[in-house]
Amino acid sequence: MLRSLFTALRNMSTETTIPKAAAAAAAVPAARAEKKSKKDAGNAFVLKTPKGTKDWADKDMIIREAIFGTLSSLFKRHGGVTIDTPVFELREILAGKYGEDSKLIYNLEDQGGELTSLRYDLTVPFARYVAMNGISQIKRYHIAKVYRRDQPAMTKGRMREFYQCDFDIAGNYDSMVPDAEILNVLVSGLLGLGIKDFKVKLNHRKILDGIFQVCGVKDEDVRKISSAVDKLDKSPWEVVKKEMVVDKHQPEEVADKIGEYVKLNGSIRDVLATLKSDELLSKNESASTGIEELSTMVEYLEALEVEQYISLDMSLARGLDYYTGVIYEAVTAQSAPPTDAAEKKKKVTKNGADVEDASEYVGVGSIAAGGRYDKLVGMFAPTTKSGKTQSIPCVGVSFGVERLFSLIKQRQGLEAKVRPTNTQVFIMSFGGGADWTGFLKERMQVANTLWSAGVECEYLYKAKANPRKQFEAAEKTGCPLAVILGKEEFPEGKIRVKVLGTGENDDGDLIEVKDLVDVVKAKLAESKVDGVDEVTRLIRSL
Amino acid sequence: MLRSLFTALRNMSTETTIPKAAAAAAAVPAARAEKKSKKDAGNAFVLKTPKGTKDWADKDMIIREAIFGTLSSLFKRHGGVTIDTPVFELREILAGKYGEDSKLIYNLEDQGGELTSLRYDLTVPFARYVAMNGISQIKRYHIAKVYRRDQPAMTKGRMREFYQCDFDIAGNYDSMVPDAEILNVLVSGLLGLGIKDFKVKLNHRKILDGIFQVCGVKDEDVRKISSAVDKLDKSPWEVVKKEMVVDKHQPEEVADKIGEYVKLNGSIRDVLATLKSDELLSKNESASTGIEELSTMVEYLEALEVEQYISLDMSLARGLDYYTGVIYEAVTAQSAPPTDAAEKKKKVTKNGADVEDASEYVGVGSIAAGGRYDKLVGMFAPTTKSGKTQSIPCVGVSFGVERLFSLIKQRQGLEAKVRPTNTQVFIMSFGGGADWTGFLKERMQVANTLWSAGVECEYLYKAKANPRKQFEAAEKTGCPLAVILGKEEFPEGKIRVKVLGTGENDDGDLIEVKDLVDVVKAKLAESKVDGVDEVTRLIRSL
Repeated sequence: MLRSLFTALRNMSTETTIPKAAAAAAAVPAARAEKKSKKDAGNAFVLKTPKGTKDWADKDMIIREAIFGTLSSLFKRHGGVTIDTPVFELREILAGKYGEDSKLIYNLEDQGGELTSLRYDLTVPFARYVAMNGISQIKRYHIAKVYRRDQPAMTKGRMREFYQCDFDIAGNYDSMVPDAEILNVLVSGLLGLGIKDFKVKLNHRKILDGIFQVCGVKDEDVRKISSAVDKLDKSPWEVVKKEMVVDKHQPEEVADKIGEYVKLNGSIRDVLATLKSDELLSKNESASTGIEELSTMVEYLEALEVEQYISLDMSLARGLDYYTGVIYEAVTAQSAPPTDAAEKKKKVTKNGADVEDASEYVGVGSIAAGGRYDKLVGMFAPTTKSGKTQSIPCVGVSFGVERLFSLIKQRQGLEAKVRPTNTQVFIMSFGGGADWTGFLKERMQVANTLWSAGVECEYLYKAKANPRKQFEAAEKTGCPLAVILGKEEFPEGKIRVKVLGTGENDDGDLIEVKDLVDVVKAKLAESKVDGVDEVTRLIRSL
Repeated sequence: MLRSLFTALRNMSTETTIPKAAAAAAAVPAARAEKKSKKDAGNAFVLKTPKGTKDWADKDMIIREAIFGTLSSLFKRHGGVTIDTPVFELREILAGKYGEDSKLIYNLEDQGGELTSLRYDLTVPFARYVAMNGISQIKRYHIAKVYRRDQPAMTKGRMREFYQCDFDIAGNYDSMVPDAEILNVLVSGLLGLGIKDFKVKLNHRKILDGIFQVCGVKDEDVRKISSAVDKLDKSPWEVVKKEMVVDKHQPEEVADKIGEYVKLNGSIRDVLATLKSDELLSKNESASTGIEELSTMVEYLEALEVEQYISLDMSLARGLDYYTGVIYEAVTAQSAPPTDAAEKKKKVTKNGADVEDASEYVGVGSIAAGGRYDKLVGMFAPTTKSGKTQSIPCVGVSFGVERLFSLIKQRQGLEAKVRPTNTQVFIMSFGGGADWTGFLKERMQVANTLWSAGVECEYLYKAKANPRKQFEAAEKTGCPLAVILGKEEFPEGKIRVKVLGTGENDDGDLIEVKDLVDVVKAKLAESKVDGVDEVTRLIRSL
């Protein structure tokens, strides 16, 4: 009876054979979903997620889990512990930490309680946590969502709700030792995710400040000149110079002097040599301190084998107010806007598409960034009787998961191999005739036995299911094994275990029901596929 | 030289030996942190998290990870895929889904864009996702935070920001097949977390509706009478009856009839037999359908070996509007308020403590709950030309992680064994004299070698560190191995590997530096301790 069913199956179209890679079919591509939601506008309201946010579908989640797993095991390798903080903070905690960007903070409505806002990054909540708990040293990682009311560019991974993966070292230590380790974490993290064509730009806030001083920028103008320099990754020097002279009222000669310095970049040792030979900078206290620190750091970077990934770049300024020492930013070739961005942008606007579409023609920006911030914890620390506040120096790095995700997802051959479920066994029943019950309860019992043994398995939620439907369902999950309850075989204590996708002539093995768990486990030892583990390997190697 | 250092160390106090369990010291107990934050009120503002929210400290995170890991591997065992949705939804998506509880929704401020609100649960976003993507069947799990502006009772795990772990099956299937599997998931989830003294209350909305009809409740009053019945887990019948008669204007005889039905509870088969023998109910269409469905289900529950955990309880009503079929709720002995709750509450208020403290004297409530909701997806589905909307039937369960966490954390002996880091090796250097460099760069090189080999290791961020400080730091991490660079040994290509906590007379093994990775891996094969894995085992067994 069972044999003849197998024969019948053999005569079916090849669609019903079960290739492992076929799992792809089950997923809903996000792009299609988005289109669909727009079409359904006949409904009472448009079904969508809020602007700048998105759903993560099943296959995307597997890739995301692989990225999180890669990064969190890296952080653990360096002795990191993890913490979590609320999605919203008291509004006063966030106030005065982000400079101009504070306008991008999401506020919660005042519903008659405390005033709160969604967190803008994980750094300020971390500093609040360190101060509130009186912690003197901690290495912590935190993987969580942050919120910015920015102009989104979805396909590039620029979102209003997005994940950050942060690793920070807080505590008083010998100079530049944790800083060098953070750069090792940054480089290892990107390499572990299969990102190879990246470059880490490094600079030091104290050197930058020294440069502005020796060029004649007044102290009160340093922050705004710094934020002009920060635009050099997107705009040519002429534009930035104009901003300094016209908008920010610097004499042209001051701007020109700055222009000479900020074009310096290259290997850390080369640029340090140039800076050291600069008489003006050598006499400047701030610059000298920065230069000395980087001279110490380069030795550590060599020992940690990351020196070669880093270039010292005087044009790197980083926007955030709270940095006080080294700053760094990793970029890839894809970080930059495409060379035809301006042209494409123009065309899109001409054809009447909305502004958001045009913003797709920007780069993804930095894929990981960070720096030293020695004063932030002190902003939350209690003031002592002598009027001093004690701060805990910190240094850290933040990986931009959405940007990394969009780079990784584009890779040739990855998405087709992602299997959204982890199902290993599909339980089927074969039978027929007027007295055929369908063995639904029996399939449940077998499933329960396998679940209890830790085996991922499924069966059709149908009292009587025909073989073709069951094979199709198994194929959808992409699972490697079928367990088959035959109408005559099962009541005799026998059950069939078949490796799927092995070709037409394999009827599987008929075994004793009592041996099922052992046989399944033995077969899975060869053929089990863990989705996240496999994707983690793929991401590293593709 | 190195030998004499070991001898010196032997003469140190026993504090410097490294017992593995000593890792506890590193963590900051949340309670202490909270107290501290109140003391620091001398600061510009009180350092705290918003009301009803909390930070998760390092050790708590390990327990949480173990809980999430246990539940997500359970969900995967049943063929679940995972998705993620934004923390906030368009406000109109949430409108009209939660009945009276809608007032507990957190709104985001109108900052000149769409009106949005924080999600109240994961069920409505799931239904929106299914409808928006035109999905006809999916088994999905989702572990994420939800938000309710409720009165918090923190130590019991009643929070304003809290996690839910949901598993739902959407699709048209044979009656009660997925429903029974969801109950299997519920029971397996609790057992997998070491919860043994629980009971699952089961009921069916159609039976309840039938009961209200045969007792003479008008159709328009059914929802409000149902929500009165929902209070029976907290209030005695007399109080609920009074609410029905006085507040909700039901004739006393109607209330009395309801009272007879809702006190029915016991094994599913017994209660079903009672209901079937009831003439009024047998003639009621709604009740008959429910009774028939449960009669089918009990067979499946038997096959899935969960029948014995479940009692059919006519007093279970569940608050949410969207349920249409079976409903269920798991409770433990600790779910109920303590018997002296009323007394304690009074005392606390008398002594002038705030209201929030009094609310600690409630139970944790249900620890997992769910039901069938066949109409919710249809509320988002597009209307067809014939004016029909097609809904996708769903059934699911939600685990209350904070409540489970607070039960698990209380367990004797668990917290002391939680190690917040996963560090396996501490790298030290021993030396002295005027020419002693401290081997900082050398420790970095060794660390980098071990990190590259996937080994979790740390070293002191200090150029010259004395042996005692290094052993103390190793002890804090609770790591099992030390790797020691001796001033004379290391330049000769030798390095020492010592198992920590093995007593005074063990100097470790002096090996070739080139063999380090192999030796460390071999030793860790015996002594490696993975924090989350160990806690997962402990949670299951304690």
